[in-house]
Amino acid sequence: MMTIDTVKYEPFTIETAVDYSKQIGLFEQSDLLEAEEIGDGNLNLVFRIQNKNTNKSIILKQALPYAKVVGSSWPLTLDRARIESEALKHAYEVVPEFTPRVYHSDHTLAVTVMDDLSHLQIVRKGLIEGNVYPRLARDIGTFLAHTLFYHSDFGMNQQEKKKLTLKFNNPELCKITEDLVFTDPFFDHDTNNIPSKLREFVETTLWSDKSLKREVASLKHLFLTKGEALIHGDLHTGSIFASAEETVVIDPEFAYFGPIGFDIGAFIANILLNYLSQEGHIEDEQARNEYQDYLLSVLTETWNVFDVEFGALWQDNAQDSFMKVDGYLDDVLNQIFQDTLGFAGCKMIRRMIGLAGVEDVEAIENEELRLNVKRTAITLGKLLIQNRSQITSINELKKVVTQ
Amino acid sequence: MMTIDTVKYEPFTIETAVDYSKQIGLFEQSDLLEAEEIGDGNLNLVFRIQNKNTNKSIILKQALPYAKVVGSSWPLTLDRARIESEALKHAYEVVPEFTPRVYHSDHTLAVTVMDDLSHLQIVRKGLIEGNVYPRLARDIGTFLAHTLFYHSDFGMNQQEKKKLTLKFNNPELCKITEDLVFTDPFFDHDTNNIPSKLREFVETTLWSDKSLKREVASLKHLFLTKGEALIHGDLHTGSIFASAEETVVIDPEFAYFGPIGFDIGAFIANILLNYLSQEGHIEDEQARNEYQDYLLSVLTETWNVFDVEFGALWQDNAQDSFMKVDGYLDDVLNQIFQDTLGFAGCKMIRRMIGLAGVEDVEAIENEELRLNVKRTAITLGKLLIQNRSQITSINELKKVVTQ
Repeated sequence: MMTIDTVKYEPFTIETAVDYSKQIGLFEQSDLLEAEEIGDGNLNLVFRIQNKNTNKSIILKQALPYAKVVGSSWPLTLDRARIESEALKHAYEVVPEFTPRVYHSDHTLAVTVMDDLSHLQIVRKGLIEGNVYPRLARDIGTFLAHTLFYHSDFGMNQQEKKKLTLKFNNPELCKITEDLVFTDPFFDHDTNNIPSKLREFVETTLWSDKSLKREVASLKHLFLTKGEALIHGDLHTGSIFASAEETVVIDPEFAYFGPIGFDIGAFIANILLNYLSQEGHIEDEQARNEYQDYLLSVLTETWNVFDVEFGALWQDNAQDSFMKVDGYLDDVLNQIFQDTLGFAGCKMIRRMIGLAGVEDVEAIENEELRLNVKRTAITLGKLLIQNRSQITSINELKKVVTQ
Repeated sequence: MMTIDTVKYEPFTIETAVDYSKQIGLFEQSDLLEAEEIGDGNLNLVFRIQNKNTNKSIILKQALPYAKVVGSSWPLTLDRARIESEALKHAYEVVPEFTPRVYHSDHTLAVTVMDDLSHLQIVRKGLIEGNVYPRLARDIGTFLAHTLFYHSDFGMNQQEKKKLTLKFNNPELCKITEDLVFTDPFFDHDTNNIPSKLREFVETTLWSDKSLKREVASLKHLFLTKGEALIHGDLHTGSIFASAEETVVIDPEFAYFGPIGFDIGAFIANILLNYLSQEGHIEDEQARNEYQDYLLSVLTETWNVFDVEFGALWQDNAQDSFMKVDGYLDDVLNQIFQDTLGFAGCKMIRRMIGLAGVEDVEAIENEELRLNVKRTAITLGKLLIQNRSQITSINELKKVVTQ
């Protein structure tokens, strides 16, 4: 057996990953293990290691010191592995049912060992295939309410919260969001990825619209300054594993103390993008309408569950005298909803013309259809940003979407 | 000579303070020094040490591990001395003309050695005496614009700003503000100090007004979550030394990353309280009107200088692409002004009925006059909180005050 040097970073191979999993006591030396690397290799190594006799398996995830995107490569802090494992542990404390359990982490090796979720499906893939997840909306609404409430000034000791921010100082990954979500798509920036047939539309609809840019500037300022709760920071449908019985949220390496609406907005944006993309996936109109109705119900149920759960936690676990004042909860939820819509709008636009597209839309083979979906998504995103204080309920949002 | 143990904390005496000032090389062993303790002994020891031959003098300030207020005593972190000296150094980098220079600091001893400002007067005292400081408004407006801009996401690298927040994690002193400014005065709390003749008025005007409490709740949430800039955190007129030629801001031990409007609001609140208190200080009506006009000019000039200077820094030192978008600067300044009014209102109310009063009002001997001033200050504070989005310019504020 090789010995793993835990004092300096080096990337695992399948062989050293297997040895390491024994070394830290997750398996016995005599266990017969099978391992494979299942990551995409762009940001992280992901090893699935299974005991052939018991079928017990775990995931060993190791951050790589660089990111590869669209051919180029840039350095990326290994500290994100520490942030991810810490964030998973904090989520596990309040919503163990929706969180992979962390069995081991090592900050020097940038490694996290956690539950294997191979029995579940990535929700983005599932929604592209037209699958229905009956628990998804309820589970994500509950996940959002509990993780966000219990890591905010509403639900945790306000001095402990300040100390906890020290653990989640995440400048490098925040910068990725600041650039790729809030800045680059709204300027003619070389990270953008804009089909030539869409360029004029983007120039007119986004880049020349000063009033829109003022609004996005304010939303970016919120992302930079509103330390409301420990947020996941990248809660798109690719960060969620699910089946008919189970929902699990992974990959919180972007976690930091930010605005509550950013997590909710990320989820809503990705559901809306899938909704719009169905034009290119389900040909039969009736079948398509039915599936889109399901997606709208995910939208409304997620918010409604969040709203009810957050309110229930508020009643029972108030950390602040003002939380007993009539009407204050409504003020807070209204503000969260407004932020949610604004962030959802930015996220939708970013996915249409920024560095990282979404498979939901990119997988549409017919070019005209695909471009139409992108135009509609950009228009809807812009509308959410600009009308976020006028759209005051999830039902109004639904009306806006279906119009 | 005694040797000072720099490994563990102990409070200085005049003798050890003198020895220490030589030990760290501020004076020669042979210098003939004179020293006195000039602090009020409630929170800090403050030694003034002077070389009898050269007249060169310095201040050695040491934090005490407790706070004494109104007879009782509670433990208070020594870390505030570190925060204070770090905040002074950061202010000195951008506004050396308004900041005492730090010659030495030791975090274990909780000590900061800095410029002696005995040639200046505490502004609160001066304004009670009816003094005019011709530079005060311009200097404080400039101080606010430069310290706040250069320590915000507008004027400093946004990733460096995140790292800098680690130095200014200040939970204990923030809690003092959270309790004494935002919470206790709006509930029947035992830290309040309410004259019995004022109690009914306070119950009706503040404690029974749910819509007011919702607004204060939102302002407190901003204080808890809006990490906009490194703020002074306690910028009342007792933290400002001045003469006709000079203005210096001291005591930033409450510094943390908070809302820009909190510092501006603190200054404005204390000018307004002095304005209202003149009813009890200057008997001659014409003389009083003239002095009150001067105070109003301090108010308007401070804001106007802040506004112009902040705008100039914005043009020349933009750290964010969105800062070139037409209208965004106006949006930011409008939001800062709104926050300023809200925080000013909370600060005024707090000083009238909370734990720490202000001498401006407490020094009024005639009880009826004093209570009237308190009622007016509470009413005005409440009005600023509730109308902060309707009062959109400093001239409108002036009108509100003079009505």
